[in-house]
Amino acid sequence: MIGRPLPTADAPHQTIGVLIGLAVFASDALSSTAYATQEMLVILMVLGPQAYQYVFPLAIAIVILLGIVTLSYEQTVHAYPNGGGAYIVTRDNIGALPSKVAAAALLTDYILTVAVSISSGVAQIVSAIPSLFEYRVWIAVGLVAFIMVVNLRGIKESGKTFAIPTYFFIITMFVTVLVGLGRYLFGTLGVVTDPPPLEILHTTYGVGAFLILRAFASGTAALTGIEAIADGIPAFREPRSKNAGTTLIIMSLILGSLMLSISFLSAHIQAVPSEAETVISQLARTAFNGRGGLYGAVIIATTVILIMAANTSFADFPRLSAITATDGLLPRQLTYRGSRLVYSRGIVLLALLATLLIVVFQASVTRLIPLYAVGVFLSFTLSQAGMAHRWWKIGKLKEGQELRERGSVLRYDPNWLLKMVINGFGAFCTGVVMIVFAATKFVDGAWVVIVIIPTLVVIFSGIQRHYHHLAAKLSLENYGGLPQIGRHRVIIPIGGVHRGTLAALRYARTLSDDITAVHVSLDPQEADRVRQKWETWGDGRRLVILESPYRLFIEPLLEYINEIEALRQPNEIITIVVPEFVPRHWWASLLHTQTALTLRMALLFHKDIVITSVPYQVD
Amino acid sequence: MIGRPLPTADAPHQTIGVLIGLAVFASDALSSTAYATQEMLVILMVLGPQAYQYVFPLAIAIVILLGIVTLSYEQTVHAYPNGGGAYIVTRDNIGALPSKVAAAALLTDYILTVAVSISSGVAQIVSAIPSLFEYRVWIAVGLVAFIMVVNLRGIKESGKTFAIPTYFFIITMFVTVLVGLGRYLFGTLGVVTDPPPLEILHTTYGVGAFLILRAFASGTAALTGIEAIADGIPAFREPRSKNAGTTLIIMSLILGSLMLSISFLSAHIQAVPSEAETVISQLARTAFNGRGGLYGAVIIATTVILIMAANTSFADFPRLSAITATDGLLPRQLTYRGSRLVYSRGIVLLALLATLLIVVFQASVTRLIPLYAVGVFLSFTLSQAGMAHRWWKIGKLKEGQELRERGSVLRYDPNWLLKMVINGFGAFCTGVVMIVFAATKFVDGAWVVIVIIPTLVVIFSGIQRHYHHLAAKLSLENYGGLPQIGRHRVIIPIGGVHRGTLAALRYARTLSDDITAVHVSLDPQEADRVRQKWETWGDGRRLVILESPYRLFIEPLLEYINEIEALRQPNEIITIVVPEFVPRHWWASLLHTQTALTLRMALLFHKDIVITSVPYQVD
Repeated sequence: MIGRPLPTADAPHQTIGVLIGLAVFASDALSSTAYATQEMLVILMVLGPQAYQYVFPLAIAIVILLGIVTLSYEQTVHAYPNGGGAYIVTRDNIGALPSKVAAAALLTDYILTVAVSISSGVAQIVSAIPSLFEYRVWIAVGLVAFIMVVNLRGIKESGKTFAIPTYFFIITMFVTVLVGLGRYLFGTLGVVTDPPPLEILHTTYGVGAFLILRAFASGTAALTGIEAIADGIPAFREPRSKNAGTTLIIMSLILGSLMLSISFLSAHIQAVPSEAETVISQLARTAFNGRGGLYGAVIIATTVILIMAANTSFADFPRLSAITATDGLLPRQLTYRGSRLVYSRGIVLLALLATLLIVVFQASVTRLIPLYAVGVFLSFTLSQAGMAHRWWKIGKLKEGQELRERGSVLRYDPNWLLKMVINGFGAFCTGVVMIVFAATKFVDGAWVVIVIIPTLVVIFSGIQRHYHHLAAKLSLENYGGLPQIGRHRVIIPIGGVHRGTLAALRYARTLSDDITAVHVSLDPQEADRVRQKWETWGDGRRLVILESPYRLFIEPLLEYINEIEALRQPNEIITIVVPEFVPRHWWASLLHTQTALTLRMALLFHKDIVITSVPYQVD
Repeated sequence: MIGRPLPTADAPHQTIGVLIGLAVFASDALSSTAYATQEMLVILMVLGPQAYQYVFPLAIAIVILLGIVTLSYEQTVHAYPNGGGAYIVTRDNIGALPSKVAAAALLTDYILTVAVSISSGVAQIVSAIPSLFEYRVWIAVGLVAFIMVVNLRGIKESGKTFAIPTYFFIITMFVTVLVGLGRYLFGTLGVVTDPPPLEILHTTYGVGAFLILRAFASGTAALTGIEAIADGIPAFREPRSKNAGTTLIIMSLILGSLMLSISFLSAHIQAVPSEAETVISQLARTAFNGRGGLYGAVIIATTVILIMAANTSFADFPRLSAITATDGLLPRQLTYRGSRLVYSRGIVLLALLATLLIVVFQASVTRLIPLYAVGVFLSFTLSQAGMAHRWWKIGKLKEGQELRERGSVLRYDPNWLLKMVINGFGAFCTGVVMIVFAATKFVDGAWVVIVIIPTLVVIFSGIQRHYHHLAAKLSLENYGGLPQIGRHRVIIPIGGVHRGTLAALRYARTLSDDITAVHVSLDPQEADRVRQKWETWGDGRRLVILESPYRLFIEPLLEYINEIEALRQPNEIITIVVPEFVPRHWWASLLHTQTALTLRMALLFHKDIVITSVPYQVD
């Protein structure tokens, strides 16, 4: 959004340092701590109280994965100082088809980020004000609409505006877990009082590797958003790769410690996963002994950072759409900004799709999560694999040699082998997680994404083929030019003889001397009137009356045009000049036959027929 | 539909006699016996078993009302040999505003006829096959769609096609009631076995005048459709008024006797009103001792005649729309037929509105009935009052004198006073029924119609005002003509230089020598390429490059056009020639900027700017 401008839109003095960078880019990643632990518990609770013993070990596994991904992305940040999103890295290092897969995965991921973050934000609100529970879908839809409007208007805040809520969240969460841990050490932290009704996703599984893997897969939602910094490097102050890398590492440290401490405490207080009250809410009121001011601060901070995470997608989705549209994978219109200097079409599209998801899944994080992380880990895997291949290419270079690719410049690096191993290991781990996720969540909804991603790839390829085909057809290579136009015939369909008709006739006279007015007659008396008036006002031009006993209007006209067309010489062009009223009020245009539009549709595939409407403003 | 053609569409040899006339016009009226008795029972059942004693007396009252309306309409049939629908009679005899009220009442009535008849037809199907109950809304929507498609394709059957189902219905119903009455006389007709669960509309009312009036009002639904013959007189063989009058009387006799006998028997067998099984179904299986072949015949006949009744509206609604559109109350487009020689727009509009009603009211006849008869009785009242006034005017004429009005010719009649009293009494009775209906059904839904009818009248008046205003503004009275065009400037917005651009340039050359190509540049390299290519291919015409650093497309173009417009001399005209691809597949047009359309919208209110798109067919 703000921190990641396109070169044409922003001047370089708006770059940011580590402190502000953390505020701008961390909301998406940090906000996932608000639901990751809870979603693990939803799966584990089928085991009863035994569940709590698995939460912390799983959190440790997730934090190890976080470490591997962070190390891997740290290398991307240095390799792509102009931005190394998964699409660009895959496109430059693996190939066209995998890059389409990456684009499809990322676009679905952005949509899901909005749906999941907003749903989780609403769940926080509902935890504090339970009476809003039955309106949660409406609140979520309203929030999406609000973010859409804000983004359509264009956001003019600086990165500093982001600093306040992000640091507010970091501070309140650290206060909460520190108070919790302190009370735990002094032995005064009890279990959660008056817990909400338990909800679990399945009741049919016993304990076993599958259950643990499913819980782990849910927990990996904590890693979503970590790739944001790699996309946004150009926003950083020089040395930007170094600044971005530092920011990434700090963000991961915060994320990891929050994930560990929230999971540890949630297990200890025996928090209950529920749609009615979030685990964060239970943790905060247990740590602070009730719903006081500090509790309120945690809920507000969590809600706000979740909304900000959704907002991030409203910058990323249109931007990636524009990049892929420039490469011809999506309609070209997505590369244009609207009058408020934002990619309005992409913003509206994202809001509509996210709203659809929220309504279908009833704003339930638990029901949305199975769709979420497949796309994220797919893009992680492709991006890291692309990086590994890039190191391989670098290993082949000679010292001092440079290889310029579309997204970055490759220079020899003596440590290429180690770095290739790091990225390769990252790709391997995230790839394994992706497969675990897809397998364990398949029936719960992951299949939807597994269907959508290839479908999108097919659509991308179809669009790209269309543009290539068109470019070939329109090319001026070996083109002899068109023959000169010999004769220009003008046809004016008229409903009556009035000022609008005369305006069209006047215009037609500047086109050609060969003018024919055509009246479709539903009523012989009306036809006589038209004929008489035309004698006075028609400037001596031909008038053809087409009888229409069956009260047809457009068909006799088309028949006449087809006749003229059949008799036409080569090099002869036909223009149909349609008089058209422009009423003062938009609704009044419903009261007029849209003759020009209808003719345009009907004659679309006829060569050398042009339809012009001459507007006549009625005031 | 078939029996009531417009003069331009059908030749006179297709006229019909009494037998076929009954088949064509009776379906709407006769089909209402399928639900009228049941809807009385729904109201009365609050009284418990006592309810049954009121059914037959109420049926007698309704049949008396039927007699009065029939007598009154018989006079209309003779007065308006060219068709005397409520709209025409009101327009010619009362005035413009009441005729708008009549049109509004009739149009809502047609929509409701479709919704009620189809819902009742589905209720018959569900009675025979209870497992379909939960799909009733879908079945009803499907039937409406089916009738719409049939009507859009255009019906080519003769009136004879109608004879089979109508007479099949008449015969099966008479067999049913005669068997029922016979068994009653021999004392072998018991009560209905295994009745469906009782459903009643309200439980809060005790017995009293209000309850009886509400039941009576529900029963008057039996009279709907009786006006059909008055609309359709031109379809009859000469002497057409006499034939139509005879048909009307026969129809009323059948309707009256069915209403009386169905009500009598339903009370005797203690039929239970229910959404799950209709009273007709209960009556048939009691009379025939179970769900055998005769029972099946009754259900099929009833369902088919209800569907035919809905079909009647699909002829009436578009036809009345066309008549009122000719009078300028509705958009003019409704007066044109589509390529299948039917009023396609009216047919689609009716299907959409009826579907909306069916979905909102969940295909429940009981919930739709309160909306139904207000409009019907309002148009009855206006039509009869119009007739009474017509007799008054006739009484003022001298013997042998003729007064020609738009819809009929007035001649002196010595019995004018008696006839005026008959029509006046008809108007009075139907007016009272309308008020009773509106008052007793107000909260159940009649208020909807009481809101819609005035709203429609306001819309009609607005549309009429618009057309009058437009005609005055476009009039050539005292019109001095437009100044000659002095200079014709042509602007061609180009995205690149290719075959499509050259086709547009070639066309532009026939318009004027003053041509400027304009390229909006998002990318300086692209702009250089355009400039170079234009030097080769641009025929020496001006090329203007508009820099757009913020990736805007349409805004810089509009700005440029506005500048040119501001510098323009009087008598100068600007044509914007937009090259436009015509891809082979419709979906591909989503991949191209609709520049012409966008410009046309943006420049709608600018005088003397014409936008032309030059299609370039890519194959």
